[in-house]
Order: sequence, then structure tokens, then C-alpha cells
Amino acid sequence: MTISLLAKELGLSVATVSKALRDSHEISTETKLKVAELAKKLNYVPNLYASSLRRKNSKTIAVVLPEVADSFFSLAINGIEEVAQEKGYHVLIYLTHEQFTREEAILNEFKNGRVDGVLLSVSGERPSGNQLQELVEAGIPVVFFDRIFEDIAAARIITDDFESGYMAAKHLLDRGCRQISFLSPAKNLSIISKRQEGYLQALKDAEGPEMTPDIIYCPEDNGQCHNTMNTMLSNAVRPDGVIVSVEKLTAPVYMACKTLKLNIPKDIKIISFTNLQTAPILDPPLTTITQPAFEMGKKAALTLFKGIEKKHYNWASENTVIPSVLVERQSTSVDLEL
Amino acid sequence: MTISLLAKELGLSVATVSKALRDSHEISTETKLKVAELAKKLNYVPNLYASSLRRKNSKTIAVVLPEVADSFFSLAINGIEEVAQEKGYHVLIYLTHEQFTREEAILNEFKNGRVDGVLLSVSGERPSGNQLQELVEAGIPVVFFDRIFEDIAAARIITDDFESGYMAAKHLLDRGCRQISFLSPAKNLSIISKRQEGYLQALKDAEGPEMTPDIIYCPEDNGQCHNTMNTMLSNAVRPDGVIVSVEKLTAPVYMACKTLKLNIPKDIKIISFTNLQTAPILDPPLTTITQPAFEMGKKAALTLFKGIEKKHYNWASENTVIPSVLVERQSTSVDLEL
Repeated sequence: MTISLLAKELGLSVATVSKALRDSHEISTETKLKVAELAKKLNYVPNLYASSLRRKNSKTIAVVLPEVADSFFSLAINGIEEVAQEKGYHVLIYLTHEQFTREEAILNEFKNGRVDGVLLSVSGERPSGNQLQELVEAGIPVVFFDRIFEDIAAARIITDDFESGYMAAKHLLDRGCRQISFLSPAKNLSIISKRQEGYLQALKDAEGPEMTPDIIYCPEDNGQCHNTMNTMLSNAVRPDGVIVSVEKLTAPVYMACKTLKLNIPKDIKIISFTNLQTAPILDPPLTTITQPAFEMGKKAALTLFKGIEKKHYNWASENTVIPSVLVERQSTSVDLEL
Repeated sequence: MTISLLAKELGLSVATVSKALRDSHEISTETKLKVAELAKKLNYVPNLYASSLRRKNSKTIAVVLPEVADSFFSLAINGIEEVAQEKGYHVLIYLTHEQFTREEAILNEFKNGRVDGVLLSVSGERPSGNQLQELVEAGIPVVFFDRIFEDIAAARIITDDFESGYMAAKHLLDRGCRQISFLSPAKNLSIISKRQEGYLQALKDAEGPEMTPDIIYCPEDNGQCHNTMNTMLSNAVRPDGVIVSVEKLTAPVYMACKTLKLNIPKDIKIISFTNLQTAPILDPPLTTITQPAFEMGKKAALTLFKGIEKKHYNWASENTVIPSVLVERQSTSVDLEL
């Protein structure tokens, strides 16, 4: 929808429509209302900021995230804000709650020049990248961090999810586990798929008899998730090792072990993908794959400002992988005296 | 700074300045540049959204928070977003990182009509409420949640911090503690002061010999915070009970007890103000004062929409107190078999 189409539809000149939208005293109230009505009906977003002498003057960047309840994102935000504050920019945080329709609506907002650049960690429900492609084509700098959309050519700051999944499974194998389950959230996320591929590859590469992969999907609903965990852990062939692929499934799996009186790490070893500050004080302390959250946020913001300041012609081909780190604690220990 | 002052300063008519700011074809490039230059110099923010037929059409609310790394805020955001989504509104999250200057800059942004309403949990460094007062006077609905600024007449959704502080101390007294310390963050926050007052009152009200209050301020810096905790716990007269007044001090105090081989709850009992999902799986499980975070966020958003929709003439005098809940777990237990 452009202003010319709006003008054509109304049988008015572009200048008149433009003035009406800007509430000019030269235009009658009747005309203004007519224009406003059709603009609303046709979902026309006036390019308010762009009209302000075509300067990039919002001094604002947007951070679009699935959620903030995960410690990865709250730490990443701190990294982003450290850079933005130095540059004198505001940071707007938008949450998609993993819903594609919300993500599309948010990205659509940015086309009117509300922000100078966008940092995006994509939602789990992305069927197409149309809005994103349009943003990139409109010249608004976009940087992906952590969760990317493969089909869009934009800068990417990620961690090594395949390698981390491999490393987690290898760690459990080295600690003697022979029946390793991979706990996955219900949503289809590219980073989880990669962690899962790493897990599958590690099982394949392991010496000795072939191991059967066991991928368990935990429903969003707390009660159902609890049931899924209980079923998994009460089975005749229950896992002796579990890879928890997202932070929020950690507490439920610990709780289920407690209820079923399974000793961690004696009966079952657990490793989680998380940046939880409480990992060392859990019962028992939790072995984690810790992501470089703060560093990723910082690097993503630095890359975005390269794009905003147009100082580097090739900023958009930035593709940085910052590795995650395995922090070993008692939940995967073989020595119970640890 | 208003457009009339800008016009006077330039020796131009208000209409000309207005058109120049709107990039009208009727105005010469030379004049536009002159206007833009002075506008920038005098920090004039054009009222872009308001000019759009004076409709409230941003369909956006702002949530201004100190941080998101605290589980209270991430849960409150979920409550806010539930309401906003139903109303078809975007939610913009701004973080102050407890800095007054950032809070002022953020609130200043809102005067140009960027958002239809503001939910605010004030920073710890608030010397005056000028920007806030101006927002309220400009007719932009403002609702405080959790952390309020006493001098501004706006709707408030809070919890019972004095009562919670009292309840926490009473709980430790009932469990036999006679030397209770109150761990406080370095920043001066009204909610922490209220929790502290409750703690002091409970000590006064306790039967038996008078107890000496012990308020310990933990520096922001991790290393220094660690030293403070170690000193507190290695003292000849160390506390037998600790009230942790903010979530982020929980892990450090548990870690310090671990290092010094102090048994929780035998040697020292701990209660924290927190909504941590991991509280039940800590070693030992943590007794908490749990705030009604989701409910407070939801109620705050519902109140804000009353203001935005102008459906209730007295929405701004809303003053809701939603009580916090003490959840007893092993960290304050007297029965070690629990």
C-alpha cells in the first residue's frame, strides 16, 4: 500500500492525501476523515519518520525476541544494551512469544522507520521470511542472533549448536551412559534441531553396540509436561542420561527425578543447555552447556551499528560463531564423593 | 521547547516551520535545513504521531523496567502481554538498568505520542518526577507497578512489601533464629526499604531479649559481593537466619555457605524474595516470599487500558495491593528429616 494508490482510490492528488494525513489546515475535516478511513481500511502506514527530512533520526534499535524468561535472552539483552548505550541509542524490546503472526506484525511496524536497525532472534513458527525480506530490501539493517532464518541474507551471530549437542552426548557417553534421551520442547526450532543432530551423530560415532536414539517432546502445558517426564522416567527401559535442550525443562526433570526418588547422578545423569545463575546451587549442581549470551548480544549490536553507520560495506555478510562451553558439575559425575 | 518558540527564534511563521519539519514541497530546501538544524540544536521533538489527525493510533504501550534478569519482571511481562495481545496492542519494553538518566530519556521519548500508555516500575535512582509529571499532565495514561514514585498521582499496582518483610522475619523467629541479618542490594529502592521496615518491626515485636538488627549492603560488583558475604558468615557472631531481599543475592549467599561449609538450614536458615522456577530444586529447596508477578502485570495492564479507552473516569486512582505468599521449603526447616 502506497500513498499514490491511496490517492488514486480516493480520486484525490497525492499532495492532498499527504496533507490530509499530516492534519494540514489547508484540508477540510471532511476530506481528512475520508482519507483516514480508507487509510485505516487499507492498512496504510504513513511513513512518519521518513518524512521528517528523510533523516535516520529515531536513534532507536529494536530487539525482537521469543521471550525474556530464559536467562540466555536476559544476558544477551545486557550485552546489546552495553553497546547501544555507548552509541546513545534507545533499545526497544519486542517479544514474539514464539508466534509467527506476532513476529510479522512487529516487523511490519518497522517499515515506517520507527527504528534504525533490528536485532532478531526468530520465533519457532516461521513459515516464510516475507516481512524480513522487505525490511532488508528497504535498507533497514537486520542482524540475526542465536536463532536465524536460513533463507534471508543478513548478518548472523550464532553459537555452535551442532557441536554443543555432540559435546553434550559425548560427555554422557564418556561418563558411562548407554541410554541417552534428548528432551525437546514441542516447538520446531532450528537451534534445537541442530543440537539434536549433534546428539544423533555422537550416538552414531560411539564405540560398542549401536544405540537407539530417544527424542522426547515435552508439551508446553505444565501438567502434560510433568506426565511426559514421569512416563519417560518410570518406563522399564528408562534413560541413564538426559540432555535437556532448553533451560525451562530443567526444573521439571529435576522435580520428576525427586518424585520418583531417582538419584542424580547415580541413577540418571543430566546435562542442560542453560545460563542459569543457580546451576551451581541446584541439588545436585547441574552440568551445563553454557552459551556465550552476553558476548553474542554485544557482537550482534556491534555488527548492527556497522550497518547503521554504514562504515563497513560488507557488514551484512558477517557470520560469527561464538562457541558454547561445557561446565562440568555433579549432575553428570561418576565419582559420588565429588 | 514548542514549535511556536522555534518559529519565533527563526523569525518564521509556525505554519512554515511545521511544513518544513514535515518536508513539505512548498518549502525550500534551504529553509528546511535551517529549521532542522535549530530543531536539533534546541532538542525539539516533533509531535509526529499526534499530528496524524490527533488520533491515538500508535496501538502500542510501553513497559519501562529496571531489568529483565529478575524472574519477577519476566513473569510480570507475560501478564502484561496477555492483556495487550487481547486488545491488539504492541508492547515495547524499555530497560532503565536502574539509572535515572536513562529513565528520564525514555520517558521523554513518550511525549511525542509514540505510545498510547506507559507501565512503569521506577528505577532505584529517582531524584525527581518531572518527566513523569509532564507525561501525566500531557494526558498519557501512566500506571505504576511494583515500584512506585510516591509524589506522582497515578494508578498503582503493588504488593505488600512491609507485610512480606515482617512475615519473612517472623517466619525465621518462629523457626528459632535469634540473629537475623537482612541482605540488601546497594541501590536505594522504596520496595526494599519497606521490606526492611517490616523486618525491623518484627524484631521489635518479638518476645524475649531485644535483638540487634543487622542490615548488610551487598555491592553490585560480584567479587566485592562475595567478600561481603564471606565476612558476614565468618564473623564470630554470624547470623543464624538471613533474609535475602532480592533474587540475585540468593545464589551468592548459597555459594558462600557452601564454601564455608555452613549447613542450610542447620547452621543458618535462608528465606529469599524471589519467583525463581528453580527454588524447589536448590540444595536445599529454598523458602521464598513469592510475589504475584503475573497477576500484578495483568492487573497493571488492565488498569492502563481503562485509561487508554477512557471507559472509567476514576481509573487513575486505582490502588491495588496484591499480597505476596510465603512458600515454606527446607532452607528454613527445623526438622532435618523433611
